[in-house]
Amino acid sequence: MNFEINKQFVLDIKEAIERQDESMAVDLMHDLHPADIAMLYDDLNIDEAKFLFLLLDGEIAADVIAELDDDDRERFLSVLPTDVIAKVFIDNMETDDAADVLGEMSEDRKDEVLAFMEDIEHAGDIVDLLDYEEDTAGGLMQKEYIAVYSNTDVKSCIEEIRKQAEEVDEIFYVYVIGNEEVLEGVLSLKKLILSSPNTKVEKIMDDDPILVKTSTEAEEVVNLMDKYDLISLPVVDPIGRLVGRITIDDVVDVLREEAEKDYQMATGLSEDVELSDSVWRLTRARIPWLLFGLAGGIISSRIIGIFENDMTKLATTAIFLPLIAATAGNVGIQSSSIIVQAIANDTFDKQGFWNKIFKELRVSLLNAGALSAIIFLYSVFFLNSNVITIGVSLSIFIVVVFASVFGVIVPITLNKFKIDPAIATGPFITIVNDIAGMSIYLTIIRMLYTALM
Amino acid sequence: MNFEINKQFVLDIKEAIERQDESMAVDLMHDLHPADIAMLYDDLNIDEAKFLFLLLDGEIAADVIAELDDDDRERFLSVLPTDVIAKVFIDNMETDDAADVLGEMSEDRKDEVLAFMEDIEHAGDIVDLLDYEEDTAGGLMQKEYIAVYSNTDVKSCIEEIRKQAEEVDEIFYVYVIGNEEVLEGVLSLKKLILSSPNTKVEKIMDDDPILVKTSTEAEEVVNLMDKYDLISLPVVDPIGRLVGRITIDDVVDVLREEAEKDYQMATGLSEDVELSDSVWRLTRARIPWLLFGLAGGIISSRIIGIFENDMTKLATTAIFLPLIAATAGNVGIQSSSIIVQAIANDTFDKQGFWNKIFKELRVSLLNAGALSAIIFLYSVFFLNSNVITIGVSLSIFIVVVFASVFGVIVPITLNKFKIDPAIATGPFITIVNDIAGMSIYLTIIRMLYTALM
Repeated sequence: MNFEINKQFVLDIKEAIERQDESMAVDLMHDLHPADIAMLYDDLNIDEAKFLFLLLDGEIAADVIAELDDDDRERFLSVLPTDVIAKVFIDNMETDDAADVLGEMSEDRKDEVLAFMEDIEHAGDIVDLLDYEEDTAGGLMQKEYIAVYSNTDVKSCIEEIRKQAEEVDEIFYVYVIGNEEVLEGVLSLKKLILSSPNTKVEKIMDDDPILVKTSTEAEEVVNLMDKYDLISLPVVDPIGRLVGRITIDDVVDVLREEAEKDYQMATGLSEDVELSDSVWRLTRARIPWLLFGLAGGIISSRIIGIFENDMTKLATTAIFLPLIAATAGNVGIQSSSIIVQAIANDTFDKQGFWNKIFKELRVSLLNAGALSAIIFLYSVFFLNSNVITIGVSLSIFIVVVFASVFGVIVPITLNKFKIDPAIATGPFITIVNDIAGMSIYLTIIRMLYTALM
Repeated sequence: MNFEINKQFVLDIKEAIERQDESMAVDLMHDLHPADIAMLYDDLNIDEAKFLFLLLDGEIAADVIAELDDDDRERFLSVLPTDVIAKVFIDNMETDDAADVLGEMSEDRKDEVLAFMEDIEHAGDIVDLLDYEEDTAGGLMQKEYIAVYSNTDVKSCIEEIRKQAEEVDEIFYVYVIGNEEVLEGVLSLKKLILSSPNTKVEKIMDDDPILVKTSTEAEEVVNLMDKYDLISLPVVDPIGRLVGRITIDDVVDVLREEAEKDYQMATGLSEDVELSDSVWRLTRARIPWLLFGLAGGIISSRIIGIFENDMTKLATTAIFLPLIAATAGNVGIQSSSIIVQAIANDTFDKQGFWNKIFKELRVSLLNAGALSAIIFLYSVFFLNSNVITIGVSLSIFIVVVFASVFGVIVPITLNKFKIDPAIATGPFITIVNDIAGMSIYLTIIRMLYTALM
């Protein structure tokens, strides 16, 4: 089963498609996992992909669609007839995947697809899921789960699993419900196997399970499942009725996406892009922060312009501009990223705001002292201008402390206003700190020059 | 079960400890999950923590130890007697956690702990695991799994699970082995429940399961489990014998750590630090890249020094230095981060090296054109120096293209030499690009000045 798509395989598939050789294509894809077929998509054009997909068994085709990247899927679905999407794909898809796919469509197309669906109950479940916000437990959960009443015995419970087994792909736990479908407990298959047929499930279930509400934020779901090492998590409505379950594989996807988003923000990309995306898309993801940086650079140039006279008097002033700017940027990103990570990992609220600032102050004083001392020694030995020597060491000290504290305040403030704090670890904080740092430096040099010269 | 440790709870616990009231402390901790007890540790000093931990039931204490941060655990274990560590903690720990804990100890202490262990078979399993590299499948796997021979029937298989159930916490799959313990297939508990007692497991198992070798890299394990949505993964030795299993919760931890490491590198932290770490530790994590940045800044200052005369002649030269440096840094980080992500996600090798460079060239030409045009218009309207106008627009163009391509080449090269390419998305690439960018700019200005003035 461990299979890597290699070049030869892609060539073979392309040949089969070119010859319109359906049986060869089916043969080639026979042993492939849907995730591998989805990866194959990257190497095919839209018509080739379409040819292949229409050869696939409905359930596999549905899995492949679920595995595709959002963009690839969108492009692909746009060339398929609505009734095929409904009957071949959506009818065979798990409810959570189906809701994700439909959620990306226009209202009109979505309604059209839903109208074409043959399994009305399935369609109803999907419509229910579409109501939840994407980044909540409701948006992550699926309607496929096994539920039994608490007074069921082990034997009937196994019967129930047999009945529902086809619908529910992977089963690890059985949810135990009472009146009005209120969740009363969770029973692992292991426990079920090891109990005698006549035992009531309420006797062997875990009656205090970890659960979430539909409104719980996706990030908290991830943290809970990670912290308690859970494989699946029941989701209840505001009055405790079981409405869905979240499985670990979906949470892994969320975790990965969150991490990538943070990383991309830190590195100045404004969209979720990949190496395989088009040149145009890659450019579009990169230009916004570059323009922002350009604006910052122009502001810098105007500030330096104000001090242009000083530089004519003391040309050495200019040589440390990049050092000050770079240090301010580096320090700010470091201090903000520690805050951003603490917020993401939910280890943030332990100490109060002023405690954090005070701690950052102590760290920054140590850093500032070290950097300032080094640059002081360097200037004393290699430059012969007291103004610059005192100016640059003093500036580095102030700039490091300022940029550190600023780097702590920005993400905390953004988080308070419900803006993703990760934005603070990228070009934004570098650029603001660059400007602030240089202004501090140039002002100090001017004051020293006036005082000492 | 959904429980948040609040301030009142911490106060209550501290009171119980101060009064040495064991029964109150036990009562308070009764409903806590080991992961929550581990979190409590952050609010206690070492003696308080020790008092609590010695009250815990062995298995729970072992789970708590496994949940602690590496540093906290190290500090905590250092104050406990070796025989308690062996008999209370390690004996009760799952083999993979035990190996992780022992792996952090000095050779002497490790041997001492192993010698004190009472469960010799368990100790043997742990010793086996200690031989594998930490970041391979062997280093991630555990020895706790259920294995049955392929000619076993369903009834005996359930018997076997009953026998081993106490040792193996979570069971989702049964591994089916043949002669010499060679892995022949995997059987899900769901299938097991739904089959009749006399069926042979070889008839119902998946006989082509996804598996990894002990030497498979951790990153590939993560990618496989994510791609195929696996809950657990069998690990075999070079001749196919089953030697362990990896469960998804361990992989989630790896995924999280990898993502955090990449993020920390991108933001210039040289160690894995958290907000709650000591001031000294935080400083130590931050100073290396700051010193590197300082060195870069000093080199910049010397390069600018070479051009000091030019700046006396044309003071406006200095005003765009920060713009050039910032743009070079931003562009380099963007292009390198896309490569770093592709390497991490295993989507890297699809196109060849030159394809990547060529694509980056096209993206960078678009970016360079846009930025260059804007700065040209700005200079034409707001500055009255042809040398600067042409110089800065030309420089931005060249610098953007250079920094982009450089940002692609560096992580690819690092990866080739088996150095973590994520290092390329942080201060390193900013600093190098800063210096290169300014050198290009100052050289161009000098050439233009000589030619036009």
